[in-house]
Amino acid sequence: MDKEIVRKIEKIVGKEGYSVKTADTYTYGFDASIFHRSPDMVIQPRTTEQVSEIMKIANSERIPVTPRGAGTGLCGSAVPIKGGIVLDMSRMNKIKDVSVGDMLCTVEAGCVYNDLNATLGKYGLQFPPAPGSAEAAQIGGMVALNASGMKAVKYGATRDFVMGMTFVKADGEIVRCGTGTLKDSSGYQLARLLVGSEGTLGVITEVTLKMAARPKAAASVLAAFRTPEDAGRFVTALVAKPLVPSACELMDRVSIEAVNIALNDPLPNSQALCMVEVDGEPETVDKELAIVEELAKEAGASDVQATKDPAISKKWAAARGSVMVALSSMKPGYVSVSLADDMILPVSKIPDAVTAYQRIAVKYGVVVATYGHAADGNLHTKMLLDPLSADEWVRGEKAVNEIFGVTLELGGSVTGEHGVGIAKAPNFQKERATALSTIREIKKAMDPNNILNPGKMEQWEGSILTNLRYPCREYM
Amino acid sequence: MDKEIVRKIEKIVGKEGYSVKTADTYTYGFDASIFHRSPDMVIQPRTTEQVSEIMKIANSERIPVTPRGAGTGLCGSAVPIKGGIVLDMSRMNKIKDVSVGDMLCTVEAGCVYNDLNATLGKYGLQFPPAPGSAEAAQIGGMVALNASGMKAVKYGATRDFVMGMTFVKADGEIVRCGTGTLKDSSGYQLARLLVGSEGTLGVITEVTLKMAARPKAAASVLAAFRTPEDAGRFVTALVAKPLVPSACELMDRVSIEAVNIALNDPLPNSQALCMVEVDGEPETVDKELAIVEELAKEAGASDVQATKDPAISKKWAAARGSVMVALSSMKPGYVSVSLADDMILPVSKIPDAVTAYQRIAVKYGVVVATYGHAADGNLHTKMLLDPLSADEWVRGEKAVNEIFGVTLELGGSVTGEHGVGIAKAPNFQKERATALSTIREIKKAMDPNNILNPGKMEQWEGSILTNLRYPCREYM
Repeated sequence: MDKEIVRKIEKIVGKEGYSVKTADTYTYGFDASIFHRSPDMVIQPRTTEQVSEIMKIANSERIPVTPRGAGTGLCGSAVPIKGGIVLDMSRMNKIKDVSVGDMLCTVEAGCVYNDLNATLGKYGLQFPPAPGSAEAAQIGGMVALNASGMKAVKYGATRDFVMGMTFVKADGEIVRCGTGTLKDSSGYQLARLLVGSEGTLGVITEVTLKMAARPKAAASVLAAFRTPEDAGRFVTALVAKPLVPSACELMDRVSIEAVNIALNDPLPNSQALCMVEVDGEPETVDKELAIVEELAKEAGASDVQATKDPAISKKWAAARGSVMVALSSMKPGYVSVSLADDMILPVSKIPDAVTAYQRIAVKYGVVVATYGHAADGNLHTKMLLDPLSADEWVRGEKAVNEIFGVTLELGGSVTGEHGVGIAKAPNFQKERATALSTIREIKKAMDPNNILNPGKMEQWEGSILTNLRYPCREYM
Repeated sequence: MDKEIVRKIEKIVGKEGYSVKTADTYTYGFDASIFHRSPDMVIQPRTTEQVSEIMKIANSERIPVTPRGAGTGLCGSAVPIKGGIVLDMSRMNKIKDVSVGDMLCTVEAGCVYNDLNATLGKYGLQFPPAPGSAEAAQIGGMVALNASGMKAVKYGATRDFVMGMTFVKADGEIVRCGTGTLKDSSGYQLARLLVGSEGTLGVITEVTLKMAARPKAAASVLAAFRTPEDAGRFVTALVAKPLVPSACELMDRVSIEAVNIALNDPLPNSQALCMVEVDGEPETVDKELAIVEELAKEAGASDVQATKDPAISKKWAAARGSVMVALSSMKPGYVSVSLADDMILPVSKIPDAVTAYQRIAVKYGVVVATYGHAADGNLHTKMLLDPLSADEWVRGEKAVNEIFGVTLELGGSVTGEHGVGIAKAPNFQKERATALSTIREIKKAMDPNNILNPGKMEQWEGSILTNLRYPCREYM
């Protein structure tokens, strides 16, 4: 990084606000995906105005800038593949306002999800999308990816809570968009456009979120099925009832096996499991619990357990939450890889998708675990690969492309909650074929010098294994 | 309109698909606002492909195109102020798909809100935003304005239900964006950007909507208060409880008086009324009904009536729904005018706003009625004006600007559910000062020849009474 530029940056954020040391830049070249590229500089701004000053320099010097939350993203959205600056937002972590009477709160982008909810909990409130990385994920990153998790089926994804936003454009202009109110019809919904933009349209610095009430009661059902199709039919029956659960997690045989090996059998051995949570007023919870049990039995469940004990619910949820890590310990020398990691489908297509994904795994001789938030159609697959085998990577990528292909054929999307980044860019471009020119027009209009997180999403060229150092190898 | 162009249009939509007759073009120069301008041609397309062919011609000939739903908008969004073509979407009114198992339906833009809900009702489902003009409003228009109504406080506005969309760009390109799934993180949320774009970015031809379950039970409370401040404190207490009602309507003294004169006293005479509806499971409804009654008494209500009889609830709702029309019959020779018609505020600012609006009415010697969806902060004001008095118009516009000014000072927005159009354009530009350059960049990128509904929103110049024939006079 040019010394004159470093001097200018230091003037804005101080000595403690940036680094060009290799140990730092190397670290900030990762997120939770398989990709890596070191930036030339890491900056940790403390205010929107600092971000604005930094962007002015970056824009005039044509330096790529990749905004970064906690780096928990699974598809490379925060990896600075064109080098330049990583803008680490973690120091802008203040909860600026919680207005109970308005059901709104305003936070800086670097505020951690669980920290926000700890504060909101004092008022009986919550910001409920519940990403899997809740203890680390930052609100700005969640907004940039429209992140969500187990609770989205009932409460909605991040986009549904973003009422207002401050972001900084490529040229340093500070834009306040959306409102400090619970709805608005005040022209283009720019705040909603920034949701899912993965740092390519602006640097999100502050967000005003709608809050939701915490439920007074909750209960869970764990149902084991003889086939994934039975489990799929159960989920469809639940949705069509209509009964909106607060969570509905599906696990296939591979996922169950992985968890039972890693955690000493917390789950009933079966071909498929559904973990359903209902919440709300105590009387409603009782009624819905009975309906869920009944529907599970009707769909042919071999075992149905129900509980109102939060400790048991928590144990089940933890078992489900451990799939990704558990998979990595299933086969020595193999790692669990996130490539086709969060397809979303029309709920009625879940059984077809689960069956097709297993067929593809067999075809390419790879191990694929399928699990996820079934009642909103969001399925995760993780693939077990030997990261040192070039052949496995090639077969793996073919399987991934076929999984995405089937998903699109079934009317789904390549990503329900993790974003596009690098891992899904080629198939995102297929999915969004008719929208690509519009996406590119908007990007060019808002970032004419292409400095904001360049090379991702609609700009990615080639397969997911091209243009990067061989994935994983360097740090295995 | 040039004859060669008319010939080309006829080739696309047939003789029955367009008109250049003055009786037709004059009619299509109105919406439900005070503004008027006749287009040169009205076209009623039947397919997305026809819209695409029409846009190609309009774009190459630089003809303005204003898409139009039912024309129920209150701020001039569908008035073709630059002439050209009005694209009447009413013939594209098919419900293309209702998938109960996926909780999704797909409709053409011209589908009428109540028609859609009649169909969804058969499955125990609904599309709940409930605009005031439910019997006529079209889905495409609702999306273009992010419309909503009494039920938005619990169920959300139109934007919260738009999962996927087909729209036609200025150059005729057909774009499919969003998904056929309940959430997605698949890049820029273009469907959400088109929400609220008022026909300036594209012609919406098809929308995929999330559906909601119909509640099993409902109940209503009608509470009369001695001061608008007491009513405001009641609403704030309700929201902060937190208790999310399915409707919460506030009416001030002027609104109550107007309705009681027009409809023979359906409402208790008071300084302010709140009409609260709760819905859901029967047990929850009972519990919430009791809480609402208790809170109303605590806030000093002089009279509290509660009912589970749908006929009585309907009567109350109809009384509230008649305010706009009732006002027009209050004073001979005077009409109720929609100018500052749907401000939205942080809920806690409702009492301040109601008080300020009345102060402004007194200052300018105009009659202002304030009412609206108080629990999401959305307030309507209607002004009684003698449409033939130039002086009244001038005082009225000053009052309107001051009402908007106070709203922005209190942290609100100039429009919660009706859109910007012409009536709110000058104050929208104040509200969106830091976002205007971005709004203009996006508009220019997607419609470089500025043919889509030109001259509105960010393009409007001058006061609301400039650039148009004298409002109202021509049709009074």
